[in-house]
Amino acid sequence: MARLAIRSFASGVALLVLFGSALFHVASCDASSSECPDFFADIPYVRFEGNQTSNLFAFRHYDADEVVCVRDTCRKQREWLRFSVAFWHTIRGEGRDPFGEPTKQWPWETAPASDKMERAKLRMNAMFQFLDKLGVDWWCFHDRDIAPEGEGGDLKETERNLLAMVGLAKELQQASGKKLLWATANLFSSPRYMNGAGTSPDKAVFLSAALQVKQALDAGKELGGEGYVFWGGREGYATLLNTDMGVELDHLAALFRAASGYADKIGWRGQFLIEPKPREPSANQYDYDVSAAASFLRQHNLQRFKINVECNHATLSGHSCAHELELARTQDLLGSIDINRGDPQSGWDTDEFLMDLPEATRLMLVLLEQGGFERGGGLNFDAKLRRESTNVEDLFYAHIASMDAMARGLKAAAAILNDGALKDLKTRRYRSFEGYSLEGRSLADLAAEAMAMEVAPSHTESASQEKAELLFSTYV
Amino acid sequence: MARLAIRSFASGVALLVLFGSALFHVASCDASSSECPDFFADIPYVRFEGNQTSNLFAFRHYDADEVVCVRDTCRKQREWLRFSVAFWHTIRGEGRDPFGEPTKQWPWETAPASDKMERAKLRMNAMFQFLDKLGVDWWCFHDRDIAPEGEGGDLKETERNLLAMVGLAKELQQASGKKLLWATANLFSSPRYMNGAGTSPDKAVFLSAALQVKQALDAGKELGGEGYVFWGGREGYATLLNTDMGVELDHLAALFRAASGYADKIGWRGQFLIEPKPREPSANQYDYDVSAAASFLRQHNLQRFKINVECNHATLSGHSCAHELELARTQDLLGSIDINRGDPQSGWDTDEFLMDLPEATRLMLVLLEQGGFERGGGLNFDAKLRRESTNVEDLFYAHIASMDAMARGLKAAAAILNDGALKDLKTRRYRSFEGYSLEGRSLADLAAEAMAMEVAPSHTESASQEKAELLFSTYV
Amino acid sequence: MARLAIRSFASGVALLVLFGSALFHVASCDASSSECPDFFADIPYVRFEGNQTSNLFAFRHYDADEVVCVRDTCRKQREWLRFSVAFWHTIRGEGRDPFGEPTKQWPWETAPASDKMERAKLRMNAMFQFLDKLGVDWWCFHDRDIAPEGEGGDLKETERNLLAMVGLAKELQQASGKKLLWATANLFSSPRYMNGAGTSPDKAVFLSAALQVKQALDAGKELGGEGYVFWGGREGYATLLNTDMGVELDHLAALFRAASGYADKIGWRGQFLIEPKPREPSANQYDYDVSAAASFLRQHNLQRFKINVECNHATLSGHSCAHELELARTQDLLGSIDINRGDPQSGWDTDEFLMDLPEATRLMLVLLEQGGFERGGGLNFDAKLRRESTNVEDLFYAHIASMDAMARGLKAAAAILNDGALKDLKTRRYRSFEGYSLEGRSLADLAAEAMAMEVAPSHTESASQEKAELLFSTYV
Amino acid sequence: MARLAIRSFASGVALLVLFGSALFHVASCDASSSECPDFFADIPYVRFEGNQTSNLFAFRHYDADEVVCVRDTCRKQREWLRFSVAFWHTIRGEGRDPFGEPTKQWPWETAPASDKMERAKLRMNAMFQFLDKLGVDWWCFHDRDIAPEGEGGDLKETERNLLAMVGLAKELQQASGKKLLWATANLFSSPRYMNGAGTSPDKAVFLSAALQVKQALDAGKELGGEGYVFWGGREGYATLLNTDMGVELDHLAALFRAASGYADKIGWRGQFLIEPKPREPSANQYDYDVSAAASFLRQHNLQRFKINVECNHATLSGHSCAHELELARTQDLLGSIDINRGDPQSGWDTDEFLMDLPEATRLMLVLLEQGGFERGGGLNFDAKLRRESTNVEDLFYAHIASMDAMARGLKAAAAILNDGALKDLKTRRYRSFEGYSLEGRSLADLAAEAMAMEVAPSHTESASQEKAELLFSTYV
Repeated sequence: MARLAIRSFASGVALLVLFGSALFHVASCDASSSECPDFFADIPYVRFEGNQTSNLFAFRHYDADEVVCVRDTCRKQREWLRFSVAFWHTIRGEGRDPFGEPTKQWPWETAPASDKMERAKLRMNAMFQFLDKLGVDWWCFHDRDIAPEGEGGDLKETERNLLAMVGLAKELQQASGKKLLWATANLFSSPRYMNGAGTSPDKAVFLSAALQVKQALDAGKELGGEGYVFWGGREGYATLLNTDMGVELDHLAALFRAASGYADKIGWRGQFLIEPKPREPSANQYDYDVSAAASFLRQHNLQRFKINVECNHATLSGHSCAHELELARTQDLLGSIDINRGDPQSGWDTDEFLMDLPEATRLMLVLLEQGGFERGGGLNFDAKLRRESTNVEDLFYAHIASMDAMARGLKAAAAILNDGALKDLKTRRYRSFEGYSLEGRSLADLAAEAMAMEVAPSHTESASQEKAELLFSTYV
Repeated sequence: MARLAIRSFASGVALLVLFGSALFHVASCDASSSECPDFFADIPYVRFEGNQTSNLFAFRHYDADEVVCVRDTCRKQREWLRFSVAFWHTIRGEGRDPFGEPTKQWPWETAPASDKMERAKLRMNAMFQFLDKLGVDWWCFHDRDIAPEGEGGDLKETERNLLAMVGLAKELQQASGKKLLWATANLFSSPRYMNGAGTSPDKAVFLSAALQVKQALDAGKELGGEGYVFWGGREGYATLLNTDMGVELDHLAALFRAASGYADKIGWRGQFLIEPKPREPSANQYDYDVSAAASFLRQHNLQRFKINVECNHATLSGHSCAHELELARTQDLLGSIDINRGDPQSGWDTDEFLMDLPEATRLMLVLLEQGGFERGGGLNFDAKLRRESTNVEDLFYAHIASMDAMARGLKAAAAILNDGALKDLKTRRYRSFEGYSLEGRSLADLAAEAMAMEVAPSHTESASQEKAELLFSTYV
Repeated sequence: MARLAIRSFASGVALLVLFGSALFHVASCDASSSECPDFFADIPYVRFEGNQTSNLFAFRHYDADEVVCVRDTCRKQREWLRFSVAFWHTIRGEGRDPFGEPTKQWPWETAPASDKMERAKLRMNAMFQFLDKLGVDWWCFHDRDIAPEGEGGDLKETERNLLAMVGLAKELQQASGKKLLWATANLFSSPRYMNGAGTSPDKAVFLSAALQVKQALDAGKELGGEGYVFWGGREGYATLLNTDMGVELDHLAALFRAASGYADKIGWRGQFLIEPKPREPSANQYDYDVSAAASFLRQHNLQRFKINVECNHATLSGHSCAHELELARTQDLLGSIDINRGDPQSGWDTDEFLMDLPEATRLMLVLLEQGGFERGGGLNFDAKLRRESTNVEDLFYAHIASMDAMARGLKAAAAILNDGALKDLKTRRYRSFEGYSLEGRSLADLAAEAMAMEVAPSHTESASQEKAELLFSTYV
Repeated sequence: MARLAIRSFASGVALLVLFGSALFHVASCDASSSECPDFFADIPYVRFEGNQTSNLFAFRHYDADEVVCVRDTCRKQREWLRFSVAFWHTIRGEGRDPFGEPTKQWPWETAPASDKMERAKLRMNAMFQFLDKLGVDWWCFHDRDIAPEGEGGDLKETERNLLAMVGLAKELQQASGKKLLWATANLFSSPRYMNGAGTSPDKAVFLSAALQVKQALDAGKELGGEGYVFWGGREGYATLLNTDMGVELDHLAALFRAASGYADKIGWRGQFLIEPKPREPSANQYDYDVSAAASFLRQHNLQRFKINVECNHATLSGHSCAHELELARTQDLLGSIDINRGDPQSGWDTDEFLMDLPEATRLMLVLLEQGGFERGGGLNFDAKLRRESTNVEDLFYAHIASMDAMARGLKAAAAILNDGALKDLKTRRYRSFEGYSLEGRSLADLAAEAMAMEVAPSHTESASQEKAELLFSTYV
């Protein structure tokens, strides 16, 4: 009965379906129950079928267990790519925007709004069913994605809710073999955080944030999470006229230090990550880009932290995503990637699925150059359906297209690195410095060497960018 | 004779005037000569006349010797503002743009193009005449602005040229009492620097840059310069496909370290400054913004450096100018300001004169908050006439309008700080943290304090931005 | 009782106040009832007190009945400026953003959510109380701002709701003397419009839009509205891969033509207005800017339409607001202005209150050049409090600051036009064309005239932009 | 001798080579002379070799004579694509930028600077040699690209120079079979045009522009040019304070009308084209984008004009290139394409070679939808080498990479259109309007139809953007 109802959502025009008794039935939808509705009953398991398939529910390029070698390192595609599905977008995305109401009517949102924990359980099951159908190994979540706040902000109830949902997630993880890439706390949605969380001028709000961070760290540890992310959506300011930037940044650093100390104390060895974004929702966010985050980490001596680069945030900050990855990589700060893309004509975070092969290849070149991800790193789909895409099938099309693009990018980047032609072009450019160290040479020494040339060089060698781009284009 | 000819340039439609014998006469235009033409003979000395004057060649607001007090500190306007004229724009600006040829026909560009040193002397005299007429105390220059490269890049001749022009400048400084705010080396115009200077992949180019830096430091010291600026116009990259970012940044840090060591060695106590810009001419510049520069300085432990914020560069990097100033100030890195503005609709560096009172006030608020400039700091007019402004008078209108705007901004900012209403609003916002230190509190402690509230705060206090803006608007 | 409760909202930290019996009492809050709570009891009437006042609830510059003369035309400030308050932002703004929940707890939102018509009546009363306290003559609304849709989209109930609220508004207008500047239909919030309204690929949705337009036109006529605005928030596309642009634009033109015909039929003589915006919510909106709207109007021969320029939309489309106003004015298409501003660093519609005198003056210069507004035109505050501003007082500070800025701009622009110095500078630039008509001269004629010069002009006169800006700055 | 010298330029580090007697030898380089140096002696003829070749001087995808069918229309690739090389970038590009001097030392720039006509002849030969080596059929030029102005602006000499070079070009065209796609006049480089050409406030400047247009039309006709382009680089304004927009736009329209009349008079049947750009060099250009140009054409009833869309200009105006093409196409205004791309992070015109397959496919989809180019239309490479690319080989790499990308895009777009899956998805979305005409239905009729539904639709069908994108990605 529930299945039939759900099926009608999954195709054509969405209709408001009122479940009958099924509703109360699914109330027992937890890990131990076989009664939980199959939300994706009409969707086949997505498997690798190769480039010639006409099946849209198949991978043309992503072959999870195919081994790809980069120089001397050989790994399966799933190990290089470490795809992760984001709970907030895929399960909780409702299609609201600043000018309009929600458009999605997902089949897992059928319990009465008043029964928050029932809805939470349905969603968690939907998440693991989705991972299963799609063949993705990892997931990510915010605390509030998976468990509702207690009534009226009651802190004990909030804690109970989170613990219950972590328990269910743990059972589902064990049953499925799926793993948690990273957890995070939502410190931006509640009105209490409108003026900041770690940077709030209100101590009670700061304390609330600290509590959420502690509980999310505990939850992540319980679920075997490899990483923990801070995204400072409200950590910034709207006008300097009412803001004490120095105080706010000191408070933020204190919160990060406290989190790091707590991880040590409870013996969690995962990776802390900061996720830069230049603005939105804050008019000006402190973690503007990789440089702002790196500078902050250095200033406050926060050594357990790396950076989670989101591609759409990179472009909003005026950089290409590859730039931000490379800038982090060269400072040993590249931890993980929120894989998505923006609309080049829009000035806000559109979180679209990246499906572009040349771009995928540029990103994978940086990742492979550093030998792939370490602990806590992966390609997390911080990407959402367009508001106008309302079918359950659309969720699959989007992930499939992006997974295939990244798999093609992986193979193209591996070929580029293995062939070496581009690398040779780069190496040749710096050959005049071979065997010459700048260490220990004073400015007077360098100037004397220059004077000895008698004539300053009138030109320098062509950078041959178009040759490099032509070479690149033969791989994509 | 020369004067007559020049006068015709200075008004109405510019005409191509062919100097006759006058040309060879001005060839003896150096500090010791009284024969040098008066390039601004038709322009009156610009003096403070107050807001009611109808004279466009007067200051309505800038009264150099008027004392302005901010809290307990009282200084003359000239000391708070430390205006500086930029040799490159005001004397050397020719009105070329990427789509068109030069439009200016300045009277000091009348010597034959072949006689480079004569032209250089005329320009230097024009500079000091301009400072004199306008009543500005400081100037700034690049090495190549004031002295031509030797023929075919001959390094000895280059050095001789620079020394000669520094000698002339020193005499003119002594005669006039004008002072050098900072010097810098032009490491971007020559084709040799097309792939970078400190980051060039070509060692010979790197050495050429090092030589220029040494000579410019020597020149700055000789002229009593208070600062030395690095602007890395070509220190960046065009495509990652041919770029080794890690190597390039290490080279750049080595150059900065060498410069710092050399300053110690020769006993120059001035301030080193880095000037961020996100792009242009480089597609991607390493010193993107204050955060990128600060991060680099910290990573490479470059302690003698502060930051020279250019307002147009700030906005090109996606920040307000006040943001960049405040971000530098809170890290004790705010050294100097290149005062100008961009066109909000254009995506390149337009270097327009800032004439907007509210913006001037926002900038001065930050500057006054840190107690004004220290050694090497000032308001340097890195601003140029529009290409279509070709009269000598236009140079004066532009500087006058901007000096008046900054002087109004100074007085408005002082009033805001002295009145205290805005400060009170800000202080009140943080009052819940009074007497509460985050030092030494563990995450578990903070979480326990939060749990003791039993209920998370549902809201937080209004940030009252519009009230702050209304207050601000009563001053401007 | 209600007043006490409301007072507590209007200051300090907002609290969730649960009204007791008061709630049901206000249920009779309609025009005939004196029982309606006074939502702004603590706010004094805002009156002109002049620049020296320290009262923040007073106008320093806006003196509604002061007469301002521009050349030969003399009008009161209220007639030049025709301020209008926007129902949607001021009364319905809830502080939601894409990353967070509502933050406002306005005292007029106290009826149970289930009693939609009661809430609607409270809001309408709040609107007229606000207009009264602030001293603004005009208001604007969307159909859905003032009246809720019928349950489950029931069309008869929707109509009844709208008629009821129009009736109440009419009574309140008559009692207060306030007037309707323009009405509009909300064709963007409902999920039905996610793919467009007039451009929806779904006929049923197109029909729904046509019905709303008809009803909103009827409502506007009933209330004596001077204008009717189309804002095509969803009239655009997200990807060309699924869009037939030609068909969609033809449908949109058909809707506009039908509306125009209906106005003729019912004898409504008001002004139709199109409001351009480049994107958001649509990824690409058809009415991108004034040129796109003008081109569309010409292509489809829609002659009863002018343009409503919103300043924040102007800057999002890459133009200054003054540019859009002037471009519309020179084509006799400038109808009305949504007065606000964007954040120069943000790429979305921030709808901030314009409080900047130089900008206000630039806008008023264009408006005064065309002799002020005609029927249907005014300065409508399409501006909202920042999400973090949650006090009732903040609504007043924001409007007061912007009204004062616009009044200062009016007076500065009038002085500029009356003094004539800037106009002279402009006129002088074109003097070579005086008495010379291009009409009837063939290219061969023009070329022959040119050849007769023998030598092409090497230069042309200075545009003296900085002189013009200096002159401008003496007025602001 | 000359050849040897040239060869050294074409590879490795460029050197300043001083030609000896060779210089005067090449002075006889005109069409009738076999003495002209072979500037590309070291470069092989570029031919189609297929995707497996390792030869960088070969096409992998562009097979000029391969027939590609779109629905029922079959044409050779060269006929669909109509590639054209731009004289200004490829032959005249010198690598200057706003911050630096020229970097290129092309072998055809070896005549003494004083011998302007000799240099012009060398360049013209280089152009045709380049077309020959690359296998491109078409070229485009500005008047000043191919012939120098007369000394001191002497108009008769200017005319003689142009006629001489047109004569040489005609001979070279006849000898080679190459054809002129379109001509244009450079109305932006000379300082005389700094305030505009057709919009200059100076009548003498306007006349100079008219003369250039006449001569360029004559030249285009003589060379059999299919089109004539107006690019209004200086037709705009810098500040409204000194600008009469209405007068300027009327003047511009008068110039366009005169040109159109002249074409009729001399019997030239080619296509006039306007090329939009939002800004740069003008701060605000009147032909901002396709809508601005279309609106202007309609307002002034200029019926012989279509639009030349430049991709980089499209993105600078806030649109995708495909958007501008489609917007022009649906109004029957799409004439030609300047094929290039911008840097997504830069806010100015970078004119890079488009090498991206997905983008090429998006553009070709629009072009093929309208059945390819008509008279005067083609893919003109308004694209330049990066400033740092200084080898002659780089010119080839750039064009080859872009030609291959466009050829791949052509084939992918043809496959998409021939397969029909994407088209079906689009058609299905509009199916509810099948057989339903909006013509003649009044708003009252439409509203009555809506009321008959009784309930407004709560939702509408999924737009399935991700499905469309997934389908698209299987072709690229």
